[in-house]
Amino acid sequence: MRISLWALGFALATLTPGLASAQTAPVLFDSAGLKTMAADAKRYPLFAAEFERTKKSVDKAMRAGIVVPVPKDPGGGFTHEQHKRNYMALYGAGLLYRITGNKAYADFARTMLLEYARLYPTLGPHPAKANEAAGRLFWQSLNDSVWLVYGVQGYDAIRDTLSPADRETIDTNVFRKMAEFLSVGNAKTFNLIHNHATWAAAGVGMTGYVLHDPELVARALKGTDKSGKAGFLAQVDQLFSPDGYYTEGPYYQRYALQPFVVFADAIQANQPELKIWERHGGVLPKAIRSTIQLTYDGYFFPLNDAMPDKSLKTDELYQAVAIGYAATRDPSFLSIAKWQGRTILTPAGLAVARDLAAGKAQPFAYASQLFRDGPNGDQGALAVLRSSAEDDAEVLVAKNSAMGMGHGHFDKLGWILYDGGNAIVTDYGSARFLNIESKDGGRYLKENESWAKQTVAHNTLVVNETSNFGGKWKVGEDLAPKQLFFSGDDALKASTAEMAGAWPGVTFRRTLAQLPLGKGSPVVLDLLRVTGGAPATYDLPLHYAGHITDVGFPLQSNVAARPVLGTANGYQHIWVDATGTPTADNATLTWINGGRFYTYRMLPPAGSTVILGESGANDPRFNLRREPMLIQRVTGAKDTVFVSLLEPHGSYDAAAETTVASASQIKSLRHVRTADGDVIVIEPVKGAPVIVAVADDVATGKQHTAQVDGRTIRWTGHIARIDAVGAK
Amino acid sequence: MRISLWALGFALATLTPGLASAQTAPVLFDSAGLKTMAADAKRYPLFAAEFERTKKSVDKAMRAGIVVPVPKDPGGGFTHEQHKRNYMALYGAGLLYRITGNKAYADFARTMLLEYARLYPTLGPHPAKANEAAGRLFWQSLNDSVWLVYGVQGYDAIRDTLSPADRETIDTNVFRKMAEFLSVGNAKTFNLIHNHATWAAAGVGMTGYVLHDPELVARALKGTDKSGKAGFLAQVDQLFSPDGYYTEGPYYQRYALQPFVVFADAIQANQPELKIWERHGGVLPKAIRSTIQLTYDGYFFPLNDAMPDKSLKTDELYQAVAIGYAATRDPSFLSIAKWQGRTILTPAGLAVARDLAAGKAQPFAYASQLFRDGPNGDQGALAVLRSSAEDDAEVLVAKNSAMGMGHGHFDKLGWILYDGGNAIVTDYGSARFLNIESKDGGRYLKENESWAKQTVAHNTLVVNETSNFGGKWKVGEDLAPKQLFFSGDDALKASTAEMAGAWPGVTFRRTLAQLPLGKGSPVVLDLLRVTGGAPATYDLPLHYAGHITDVGFPLQSNVAARPVLGTANGYQHIWVDATGTPTADNATLTWINGGRFYTYRMLPPAGSTVILGESGANDPRFNLRREPMLIQRVTGAKDTVFVSLLEPHGSYDAAAETTVASASQIKSLRHVRTADGDVIVIEPVKGAPVIVAVADDVATGKQHTAQVDGRTIRWTGHIARIDAVGAK
Repeated sequence: MRISLWALGFALATLTPGLASAQTAPVLFDSAGLKTMAADAKRYPLFAAEFERTKKSVDKAMRAGIVVPVPKDPGGGFTHEQHKRNYMALYGAGLLYRITGNKAYADFARTMLLEYARLYPTLGPHPAKANEAAGRLFWQSLNDSVWLVYGVQGYDAIRDTLSPADRETIDTNVFRKMAEFLSVGNAKTFNLIHNHATWAAAGVGMTGYVLHDPELVARALKGTDKSGKAGFLAQVDQLFSPDGYYTEGPYYQRYALQPFVVFADAIQANQPELKIWERHGGVLPKAIRSTIQLTYDGYFFPLNDAMPDKSLKTDELYQAVAIGYAATRDPSFLSIAKWQGRTILTPAGLAVARDLAAGKAQPFAYASQLFRDGPNGDQGALAVLRSSAEDDAEVLVAKNSAMGMGHGHFDKLGWILYDGGNAIVTDYGSARFLNIESKDGGRYLKENESWAKQTVAHNTLVVNETSNFGGKWKVGEDLAPKQLFFSGDDALKASTAEMAGAWPGVTFRRTLAQLPLGKGSPVVLDLLRVTGGAPATYDLPLHYAGHITDVGFPLQSNVAARPVLGTANGYQHIWVDATGTPTADNATLTWINGGRFYTYRMLPPAGSTVILGESGANDPRFNLRREPMLIQRVTGAKDTVFVSLLEPHGSYDAAAETTVASASQIKSLRHVRTADGDVIVIEPVKGAPVIVAVADDVATGKQHTAQVDGRTIRWTGHIARIDAVGAK
Repeated sequence: MRISLWALGFALATLTPGLASAQTAPVLFDSAGLKTMAADAKRYPLFAAEFERTKKSVDKAMRAGIVVPVPKDPGGGFTHEQHKRNYMALYGAGLLYRITGNKAYADFARTMLLEYARLYPTLGPHPAKANEAAGRLFWQSLNDSVWLVYGVQGYDAIRDTLSPADRETIDTNVFRKMAEFLSVGNAKTFNLIHNHATWAAAGVGMTGYVLHDPELVARALKGTDKSGKAGFLAQVDQLFSPDGYYTEGPYYQRYALQPFVVFADAIQANQPELKIWERHGGVLPKAIRSTIQLTYDGYFFPLNDAMPDKSLKTDELYQAVAIGYAATRDPSFLSIAKWQGRTILTPAGLAVARDLAAGKAQPFAYASQLFRDGPNGDQGALAVLRSSAEDDAEVLVAKNSAMGMGHGHFDKLGWILYDGGNAIVTDYGSARFLNIESKDGGRYLKENESWAKQTVAHNTLVVNETSNFGGKWKVGEDLAPKQLFFSGDDALKASTAEMAGAWPGVTFRRTLAQLPLGKGSPVVLDLLRVTGGAPATYDLPLHYAGHITDVGFPLQSNVAARPVLGTANGYQHIWVDATGTPTADNATLTWINGGRFYTYRMLPPAGSTVILGESGANDPRFNLRREPMLIQRVTGAKDTVFVSLLEPHGSYDAAAETTVASASQIKSLRHVRTADGDVIVIEPVKGAPVIVAVADDVATGKQHTAQVDGRTIRWTGHIARIDAVGAK
């Protein structure tokens, strides 16, 4: 293996102490890149804006003067926020010094770091420490790691401006001490395969490069015992699935991504022989792309604990997109940066701004894709079906992924749908008002447990009004769904998955498919078969967004007093507006959303009822959003099958005062159980019927036949669409 | 008076029948303008797009062929929609012929009009006629008038292409017959001072110009008896207030505007000596500007019966803005056209597109303004306070206008508020789903009477759970509020109005003021004094938009069964979430909307309670939107005063994950009744208190003094802001 420049620099340095520059010059950003950045800082709009933004905030911090308080407050408190401000100021000041050459920035960083050099060695465990591993500057060590990740980058940029004495002081009393504390001093956390450990590894490893300390680098890459069982490389191999999916879901994937890309960038600069971007099948670039794929119109699918207002416009993604572009030169990252309207103040950010200005951007290829879950990709999957690559395409997300640890929801085989730029079939996300003091200090609310995580708050099967795994996520960690089939082909986009063990003795299988009929967005076919051990109550909720314009069946309405549906597992939060017992002829609900109509058409199993409800009961603090839902309920059956169709149709134009096709364009929906499968017949108002045949067997080559309406249907493989003669 | 070209043309023509061109050339659009339009049709983007749009729809109509069915269906039915399509096609074909010179368009119009010439004379009253005056092509004559307005413009454009025989046939059997029917044949409607009559006058008058028939023109301008008691000129003088406000409110002002501007444009072209644009103090240009002023971010204030999704992007406003620009050359109309992204396919539209392309647009001067109501401006007013001219300014609208006829709501002295681009204090608008078949065919729903029009559905006083005027709009027609004071000055923006007779023996007076405190949007002070004849229950609802983040006072919550507040006058539609009895120290409600927080702070009168509720009870068809409200309730008092403060504060940024000032920045609110007025003391958390003094006397020059906190306050005039020493 060839010796990296860094290792060489280290070797030389140790041999010849006189050779200072190799010991002090920036190592996290290559010097050529830094020179170009300095020369062209004002040249490209996106970067120039970033420069101004950073300059403004750092200049403000400099006017405010050096404030390095003794740690005292928990998250949100003054000392907490001040130490956060400090690491951002260090990072900014370092880069601004490199860009402007203005020594004032370097001096500011130096003075602040000398303060930290005085303070840090005196610190023990943080006074406000909670259950989490205690930090020293912060109540949890995770924040200390983040301090180090940002701080050491700022330090690297100004280290060669220091006198040997100052450098020695800061090396020893700030960075080496922090790196020691966060690695061997905190070995339990450091050696986890968990994103908290990734932040620690990134901070410790980058410190190793800056201090030219191979021991720190080795710990960061391979764990405190350097066996490779832990550390960054093990995290790269195990925290993402082979498709670059992070098990906690899109919202936390965004957060977890940052230390991976930042440290990978540093590793590439110092130990290119590790080929970090290619490791484990190039999982890191894949992870950046999959994070972007897991969005609609730029907003992350709000699965598991997630704030629904979180988009690609976040620091983590500014870093990931810029570093990802520098590493791959994939021009589709440029169109994402354009949408973000931001980049980062590094050579990578400059490259993004320059190439964007040069018109090199290509559209990001949003596509139907299966994201397998688990280190080996065998713990279920997230199945994403897109009708097109457009921002307003119809996108169906089937949540067939694993539990996803403590932030995971009990939503096995659930789904959500977007269309025309709007969320149509929804996921509540988390019950939380981030950073809003009056809402439990911005932490997760108790309604996150009592509603948001519960199965009934999602679009999937509920058995006997209880949640998956009895509501115990650790149980769920061992029981992932099986993704049995996926096709993203334009011919027929479909996903089939199966879940066993979410409830004792209950197995359920679900096929979701996008079927283009005529011009508009595809209709969505939902076939859900439940096989139970004993008679039970099966609920299938649909959480939808929009205003009801039509209900096909008679309702018993609670118009003068509104009761609550249940007492636990989320049911205590559901107001019951009305109930009904529809038939196959009239089981429809139509609503309007964003100038388009949506009809949900059901084939109610025998003895089933339909409940129309709304979230918000038993919520005295007004912590919940009030959102409508429909629940299909079958009582007393052992096995059952739910067949449903969601049909986008028509348009409403307020400006032109025109309304088209506000009524469903489908005449009938039928389901026939055959010898070895299910056949669904969809009859449009205009045009010939469409038949969808779904074989129990998911094998690809197999032939299947069935009798439907006295006619023999033949198809090959798990699922097929058979347009009757005369159909388009 | 000088002879107009048109009158001259007519005179000559009658003297010398040989002189055809004066008899056949277009008269509604000047020939120079038509030539330029033809020459430059593709030259300016906005007009080129309009050309393509019209060409597409007319070409489609031509492919479909001539379809002139015998009238049969009511609104929405086939014959109704087909005759609508026909007049749009006629209008488009005529203009396209003038632009392209393509004879095919003229022939299409000719053929269709010859069909109408065969059909129309055979028609009696429409078979589907209802209470409204029956039309012949349509179920109500209003639609026949609209047909004539569009149809005659199309005909004018192609009339000189016809053989004398065809021209004679169409003149006589289509246009003259229609004009006769809509004027003398329908005199009762035609002679009303009402916008239906304006459509008729426009159609008849323009037909008079095209057929060179001074009799028709005279009827149109002065009524069937030509006395001037009725007709267009009387409508111009009486239907708008001196400030160009139309009494039905912004939504219907938009609709009423079109026949005024279209006919005025034709009058200007044919009888410039009438100086129609200058008539009655130039009320027509004023009416166009006021229609635009009555919007927020382009959307009309949804007062009275109004669809809240209606914006300046409507045919009526494309016409009004283009014609208004042609008449005034006011460059601020260009910025409106730019926002609309549309114009009209006439010389006026071309001028808009050309000057917009030439960069002549100026910002439209949105401003604080009083819009007096009634022909003489003495029937109340709409008071609009704007913190700035920006689209996201804080805009307060005080609804102190008259009843506004049958589409008026019972909302005397109500108000709404916009801020940061969002509606914050809301008006429900009308309960209607326009053109959505399943919602009572798109007509006004019964909830429009039972909820949307009722007083409790608005932000104003309710006495004994009943509505203004016992819910009888005809009673309201005779009882308008008095606008006592208005100031749009930056120093202090405020409105004071008084209402007597909305309930027997009850008079109430309300002052609403915008007070800038510190950097953000102004706080809104609301002082409402009620003087009653007998002990009563006084409710003051606040309908707000957003999610509750904090409630300052203890609540008794209905968490497990949700009761209804009342039984009639809108109260039967209110769910009660919780009630409380706040004190002056804790009477606050805080919500978040669009990244900003809003705190509503009350000074609860003695013995008052607060109700937190939501619309949607007794609504089995899901016809109502579910929107939150707060109601201050005082029971058993004869007189009372409500003092409230609405405070925008702080910010929430989901991308940056930062939240600032989510708690109210005001420490206390106090109210002191003095000898001849009210003094309100607002004490911010930071900075010195602000005092607002409101004298009962609204006279401007008067001196007032009061003792507050042992200090003597002096001010001049009705209302004054007194910043304590040391305040900014």
